[in-house]
This record gives sequence, C-alpha cells and structure tokens, in this order.
Amino acid sequence: MTVILYDTTLRDGTQGEGVQLSVADKIKAARLIEELGIRYIEGGWPGSNPRDEQFFAAAKVSLKLASAKLCAFGATRRAGVRCEQDKNLAMLLAAEVPVLTIFGKCWKLHALEALCISSEENLELIEDSVRYLKARVDELIFDAEHFFDGYADDPAYALAALQAAERGGADLITLCETNGGALPHVLEAAVRHVAGAVRVPIGIHTHNDGELAVANTLAAVRAGATLVQGTINGYGERCGNANLVSIIPALKLKLGIDCLSDAQLARLRHVSRSMDELANRTPWSQQPYVGQSAFAHKGGVHVDAVKKNSRTYEHIEPEAVGNERRILVSDLSGRTNVELKARELGLTLDPKAPETRAILARIKELENRGYQFETAGATFKLMIDEALGQRPRYFKLREASVSACIHEDHAEQERFDTTATLEIEVDGQVARTRAEGNGPVHALDKGLRALIDKFYPSLKSVRLVDYKVRVLSDGAGTGSVVRVLIQSSDGDEVWDTVGVSPNIIHASWDAMVDALEYKLVRDKVAPRGAEVEQRRSRISGLAPREGSLS
Amino acid sequence: MTVILYDTTLRDGTQGEGVQLSVADKIKAARLIEELGIRYIEGGWPGSNPRDEQFFAAAKVSLKLASAKLCAFGATRRAGVRCEQDKNLAMLLAAEVPVLTIFGKCWKLHALEALCISSEENLELIEDSVRYLKARVDELIFDAEHFFDGYADDPAYALAALQAAERGGADLITLCETNGGALPHVLEAAVRHVAGAVRVPIGIHTHNDGELAVANTLAAVRAGATLVQGTINGYGERCGNANLVSIIPALKLKLGIDCLSDAQLARLRHVSRSMDELANRTPWSQQPYVGQSAFAHKGGVHVDAVKKNSRTYEHIEPEAVGNERRILVSDLSGRTNVELKARELGLTLDPKAPETRAILARIKELENRGYQFETAGATFKLMIDEALGQRPRYFKLREASVSACIHEDHAEQERFDTTATLEIEVDGQVARTRAEGNGPVHALDKGLRALIDKFYPSLKSVRLVDYKVRVLSDGAGTGSVVRVLIQSSDGDEVWDTVGVSPNIIHASWDAMVDALEYKLVRDKVAPRGAEVEQRRSRISGLAPREGSLS
Repeated sequence: MTVILYDTTLRDGTQGEGVQLSVADKIKAARLIEELGIRYIEGGWPGSNPRDEQFFAAAKVSLKLASAKLCAFGATRRAGVRCEQDKNLAMLLAAEVPVLTIFGKCWKLHALEALCISSEENLELIEDSVRYLKARVDELIFDAEHFFDGYADDPAYALAALQAAERGGADLITLCETNGGALPHVLEAAVRHVAGAVRVPIGIHTHNDGELAVANTLAAVRAGATLVQGTINGYGERCGNANLVSIIPALKLKLGIDCLSDAQLARLRHVSRSMDELANRTPWSQQPYVGQSAFAHKGGVHVDAVKKNSRTYEHIEPEAVGNERRILVSDLSGRTNVELKARELGLTLDPKAPETRAILARIKELENRGYQFETAGATFKLMIDEALGQRPRYFKLREASVSACIHEDHAEQERFDTTATLEIEVDGQVARTRAEGNGPVHALDKGLRALIDKFYPSLKSVRLVDYKVRVLSDGAGTGSVVRVLIQSSDGDEVWDTVGVSPNIIHASWDAMVDALEYKLVRDKVAPRGAEVEQRRSRISGLAPREGSLS
Repeated sequence: MTVILYDTTLRDGTQGEGVQLSVADKIKAARLIEELGIRYIEGGWPGSNPRDEQFFAAAKVSLKLASAKLCAFGATRRAGVRCEQDKNLAMLLAAEVPVLTIFGKCWKLHALEALCISSEENLELIEDSVRYLKARVDELIFDAEHFFDGYADDPAYALAALQAAERGGADLITLCETNGGALPHVLEAAVRHVAGAVRVPIGIHTHNDGELAVANTLAAVRAGATLVQGTINGYGERCGNANLVSIIPALKLKLGIDCLSDAQLARLRHVSRSMDELANRTPWSQQPYVGQSAFAHKGGVHVDAVKKNSRTYEHIEPEAVGNERRILVSDLSGRTNVELKARELGLTLDPKAPETRAILARIKELENRGYQFETAGATFKLMIDEALGQRPRYFKLREASVSACIHEDHAEQERFDTTATLEIEVDGQVARTRAEGNGPVHALDKGLRALIDKFYPSLKSVRLVDYKVRVLSDGAGTGSVVRVLIQSSDGDEVWDTVGVSPNIIHASWDAMVDALEYKLVRDKVAPRGAEVEQRRSRISGLAPREGSLS
C-alpha cells in the first residue's frame, strides 16, 4: 500500500491567522517541503491575491524542484461564462505548472446559498472546468469541497458532483472535510462508500476544528484514500489543516506505509522548526513528535523508568523524527548532540575531555538563557573556540551609546531621530564615530562597520542579508527576553549568528559582532596588535582557559 | 447512554512542561472545573511532592465542592511491605477524600524492568492494594497504566491485571494509553474486548503523543467506556493529556451524550481561558472550539459565504461553547470583510459612503507599509475612528527620548544601561519623567505608564501580556522594517495593537499608545481638558475629517 503526500502550506496554510509568507519566504518554504520528500506542493491561488501570482512568476525563474511537483489552486469557472472567457481559469493556466487543483461544491447548500445557482448548474460548472483544464495540463486534481457535509445532507448529490469531475477527466479526487467537524467513524464510512463508487484514486483533506484532523486523515487512508493533503505544523484557516508533521510518522512508523525514506523522516523536526522560523511562529512546544516537550520527562517515576528502558514512556525513538529525549530535572542528555554539532563544524571533540564538559555546561547555560544554536552555526563555532580559549579578540569596545528621540514636528507629525556613538580600540589605536540610522540597531551597525572596516578591510565584503527578532518569554510584555538571528554573507558563504538579551540592542550587538568576527576567524585573519589578547567570555564567571591560537 | 467526566488537570496536567500551579491556584482551578460540570476532580498525588499534600490539607478547610467529588491519586503498595505499612497508601487515606485512584502496571515490561519484580508479584500488589483501600474509602478507581502497550505485548497478562483489580473490589477501571502512541482502530478493538471481559465499568485515559488523544477517547466511548479522563486544554506530560475542552463538545454536540448542561457548555471558553490564566500559559490561538482563531475567517470566499449562512464554514455555532465569530481583515479580503469587521466593533458602515472608501484606502495604504490588522482588532477600531474624525486625543507627546549605552565594566564584562525620558501634556499640564528599563522599549513603556496613569487611573489595570516583533523586509538587514504586535489585558478583555516602522522604538511606541488609548475609548473615558482636540493622523497627508465625538 502506498500513500502520496500533498502539501498545501503555501495555499491553505497561509489562510491561517497570523501566517504570512512573502514571495521569498514561499520559495524557501517550497524547498523545505521538497526536502522532506513530499510529492505535491500547492504553491498558491493565482487570481485570489497578487502575492500568489508573483510567487508563480518567481517560481518559473528560481524554483527548480527535482522530485516534487508544483501545483496551482483555483475554483471552477464562474456561472454564466464559458471556460475560455473565465479569468481565473486563465490565470491558473498562466502559472505554467504541471498540476492544477480546482475545487467545486458538493453540498447543495453551497450551490444554492453561496454561489446562488441551481444544483444542476453546479454540476455543469464542475464537469466543464475539469474537462477544459485537463486538456491543457499534465495532471488535474479535483478538490471536492465540503464533501462530507454534502454527503450527510444528500449522499446522491455529493456523489454526483464527484462523478461530474470524473466524467470531466480528473486524475484524482480529493474529498475535503472543509468545516473540520466530522467524526472519524462517520468520515471513514463515507470514504469507503466513495472508494467503491468512483474509479479514480481518492485523496483526503481535513481540518482540525474538532481536534480530529489527524485521526480523520488516518481513517480515510484505512478506508481507501491514497493521497493525503495537509500542511506543515497544521497551519490553516480557523483551527488549521491536518498536520502533516503528525500524519507522516503515523503512516510510516505505525501503519508501515512507506511514504518517505528514513533519512527524510529524520529531517521532520528540522523542517517543522524551519517553517515556524519562516512564518515567525512560536514553535508549539507540546507538538507531537517534533515539539520541545515531546520527549521531555518530568515526573520522577517516568524519568526513572526511561533511564532503564526508553520504551517504558516513549511511543517511538525520538531520533527517528530528528528529535531528542530531554530530562527536565537532570542533565543526562546532550553530550552526543554537542559531539555531532561540533563534527558538523569540522571539530573533533573527545567526549571525555574536560573541554567537552566545559562546552556542554556552556551550551546548557546559554540554552537556558534562550540561545538556540540549531540556526546559528557561526555563533556555535565561536562559542566552542571561546570555551577552548582559542577565540581571538579583534577589537575592544570602549563605549557604544545610542540615543533615539521621538518628538512632534511643526506639522505635529511624530519624528524619530536615532544616533549611535561608538568608540573602539584596535592595536592601541582608539577610533571614534557617530552614525545615524533608521533605528538603534541600524545606527550601531553603520557605526561599527565604519570603524572596523579600516582595520580589517576584508569585512567590506560582509553584508547582513537577514535580521530576525523573536520574543521568547510569554507574558512578560515589553520586559521579555528577545532573540536576534542575523544572517550574513560575503558573496561566497552565508552564516548565521545569534544574540539573546532582554535588551534588543544588546542582543543585536552580540549577533552583529559574532557575524563580523566569524568572517575573520574563518579566513584565519590574525588580530591586529603585537599582543594577542583573548576575547573575554560573554558569560560572567567563566574565565577563558589558557591556550594557543589554532 | 451516559459518560462521566474525570479531570486530572491538577495531577497529570501539572506534569506538563511549564505548567506550575500553587496551592491557591489549585483551589481556584478546582472551582473552575466544578463550574464546568465535571464529576471527578483529581487533586494531586499526596506523597509525590509536598505541594500536593498541602493542597489536600487546604481543600479540607476551604474547598467546598457541591457537585464534584475530589480524588487523590497514588500508586499500588511497594513490593515487600504490607499495605498497613506502606507510607504512600497511608498518605492517600490521610487526604480524607471520597474517591481514591491508584495506578498499577499492566505491562510485563514495566513489572520486570521498572518495578524489578515478577509478573505474579505485580498482580498481588494490585489486588492487595485495591482491597485494602476500598475497605477504607467510598469509591476506588483503578488506573490500568500502559494498558494498551501491555495488551499489545501480552493480552492475557494485561487482562489478568484488570481482573486482579476487579477481585480487589475496584468500582471502576480506567484503561490508560500512557505513552500516547496508539491508533484509534487498534485502541477501539482492545476496549471492546475488555468491556466484554470485566464486569466493572470502564474508563479511558489517553495522551496526545500521536495528535490522536481526542480521537482515541471518542473511539473508547464508542467501544463501551463510560468514564472519560482528561485535562483542561490538554495540559500534561510530554505532548499532553486528552483535551477535555475538545472532548466535551464532541460528546455533547456530535454524539448527543448529555455529559453536562447547555449552560455549562457555554462556559467552556471561559474555563479554558481562566485555566490558562492560572497556569500562566499563552492561550493556544488555534485551539479547537475555544481558540481566538477557531471561528476566524480570513479568505475572501469564506467571509462572503459565512455572511450569507454561517453553516457554510462553521461546524457548530460558536456561542454554544462561549466563543464568537471573527472576521479577519487582510490583503486577501474585500469590502465585505471590512463591513463585517466594523459591525463586530459596533460600527455600521454604509458600503457606498465615502467614509467606507476612505477606510478601505487607508487599510490598503497601511498594509502596503506592513500593517496587519487581522491580529490587531484594537488598532483597526482606532484607525476607523481616526478616519471618521472621531478618535479623541488623550495626551500630547512633547518629547520622548531613549539612550542606551554599552560599555565594559572593570571586569571587562559588557554592561548595558537604558534610560527613557518622557514629557507629555494633558489638559495644559506638563508631566515629565525618567525611567530605566531592560531595553529601550521597556524603559519607554515604564515611563509612559508612570505619567499617564495619574491622569487616567483606569489604565492601572492594563497589563501587556504579549509582545511580538517581526522583521518584514527580506534582505535589508538591520535597516529592515519591523512590525510590533502587542497584546494587552485589563483582566476582563484581551486586545491587540500593532505598530510598523523601520525603527523598532517607533513601532513599539505606536502599538503601546494604541493599547492604552483603546482601553480609554472602549470604556468611553472622556479626554481630560476643556477643549477636545482630535488626535492627528499617524499618516502624513491624511488630514482628519471634521466631526464630533461619539
């Protein structure tokens, strides 16, 4: 038995409250989804908003999918026009993708009250539109919107809508549980009936309004559905769509359905987290399989038993989905993790050496403060160098200050002026500058660059390509801790750095300094000055070890 | 058919990461759970931690439950001691509650590897402990821990454990899906088998590690379970316990099982929110039935149809569970969204009036600059008032400035000092203050609150509950535009405001001012001062219309 995966994060997912993806984000997201091994990627609904049209235009140029197929989504033609005249159908074809997915109504209520047409005319719209598009595209999928509500209301009519799509030549029909309120045993019986009544393969699309989307999807698969539609992390309208991040491991690990490879499954947590980063959503810590708490053990009885045999309180091996066990009250975990991350950066750490223990302790301390190294490899490398006493000090900050002033001008418009003043010392020379910027961080960035480029000219090539801010602590309002992630590039390589503080300027400063120093360390640039001074630890109480520069 | 509800928020719920309840919180929480109409309230595990003992001591004095029964939870006796000598059983009895729930092992693996006893001795522990306690308490429930894993491993042994409890005199046996990884069809078959093999009533307790806890609970009820165990909002170890907030409406509205009254069901959202408040957890906005987004419509097609007939995209009436419909305004939306959103805020807009067109134009302009109103209803309301020339001006900002200074102290640690200076004018009086904060925004927030509370004392109840920052423009590094979302509460209501600027201080300032002014506008507080001045538009070139205050 096989199941094909169809992702609609970029279309239905973006209908979720608070989910907004730019065109560039959508391109990155599509690559992530492909990396996971998903076959179909629904990119958007050209015609419903300008961003989705821009996405398909951009995709033609810059999105080269190797194993996945890009799909465009749209509606059946409007009533009263021919397919050739329908603007929306034309926009679907203009997307120039190998797969089109169109939705049509299967519930009389919708034909009569939403479209305001007769139930017969609705069937004509479906058959017409499917036939017209199928003649012009490789693959045509029909999304049977509200199929289950329609089926409960009038089974014969709901089936007639599917048969209209089948006559039109649809390659596959996806049954949509659009309102998200169905119960698994009811849905399963309906799918079983449909699977016997149409000849084309059946797909399933569910929503989570009853906290049953995953169960409904699995029930449909048991009843004969061979395509599963969902979104990464369950993004979507209202309570969200079916969460592929929970469905995929259930199919593969529990039902033995080989929908993707073991290696792809081990990327599940990475893809889930990266998607949250792109969408700027706080990760759901209790998220099944991939959440921070998913394999976290707190109760004394649990911790004791898990230590003896992990099967006692874990339904799967966390590593299978790229997650890890966490013991909340002790420090059993982590060493393997550090060793693997260090290896990624080309460092070999002896698990028993005191340095390794020092690094482990450092990671624990920084992670407790909100650091996250998964997306900040450059800071991680510098942190290891620092723990080993091998991080050079390229400059000394004497003082940096920023002042921002809000006042009303003569027209009573609010005006904002921001100025940074910086003083640094390199090789005994003191350099000072003032810089204005859009905001405090921008002004500091401009000032620091103006000073330091003189001493280290190779930094001129470094460009900050992305800057992200995430507020960490819930409920602390403007006193919250923030994490700043900066992505930098010198044209050849891209690297990421991180800073954490209750002060956004402080957090940004740490990430900016790491971004510049990483470039110098990587290029093996020697610090200016006769005496090589070690950079002081950013953590109070942790003195750098004696050691020579590598 | 009837189903009895059993809540374990105060015991298993508090094993969830980040869930912490004081004794006083637990007393309040128990009252909330009773208010919802739940029959059994598991208060804690005396003997496992001092807080739970204190809770039962406090409950004797101050918790008078009318309709619910308080339960204490614990384990079977230890191996090698008699029940009379077992300290944990003694502590259970000392709780002096009408119901005791004890758990025992049903999976050989656990007997052998966790308890390190023979499988026969485990059966003796169960029977002994149940008999001993049942003789000393009104009601005794046996929690069959890991029943489903044990049943998959060795069905005869798992059943033997249940039968030992039955022989001991247990009033009810709850089958526990402890590791949370079971699939509904597998679990359902096991429950059906048990229901035919024991005479006592059966309960069900599931976990959400597969995102299937609600489905597994409903499957067990269909197979014959008559007691349902779960927690409010699904708090609990790892991915949480079965979420009663989703199970209850499914039982009542979808399966027609009368587990509580209509009036109690209508308190569901209130109980869910209040519990989050007690546990200091950010509410899950996509939460089924009760979440902020559960009945929020964003896509244009959806909004259009819901306006015609809400059944088109809603599986239940939101009011049945105390929730409400929300129309989101975004760049996906058209005139209907704006009109309905305004109606929600108590404003009637004529779709053809020039004001409506002005508001639409304003939304488009602000959204182009990065504003997002779908999650910022309060700013949206103020923006409409402003466009109609009806937004009062509560204070005039004369000047605000922030200075942040980074320098190294004597130990060469980086130090950060941040100070805000503010001068505002209200009713001809000038007030000035200086405030220090964790960061620039925190300092400004503290300063503004210190000044403005004096003039408008009702603002003292306003608390900032969440603060989010999103960097909007890709590739502009630290010069990017940022969007700040602030969520505020006065204890009764929660509202959201937004500010956008390349300067994070500016963006935060706008969102903070909106948060305070929204509270005053909503409470119909008149601005101080003889002359009521209109607030100037934040948008250059858009002059406020003449108009009187409503």
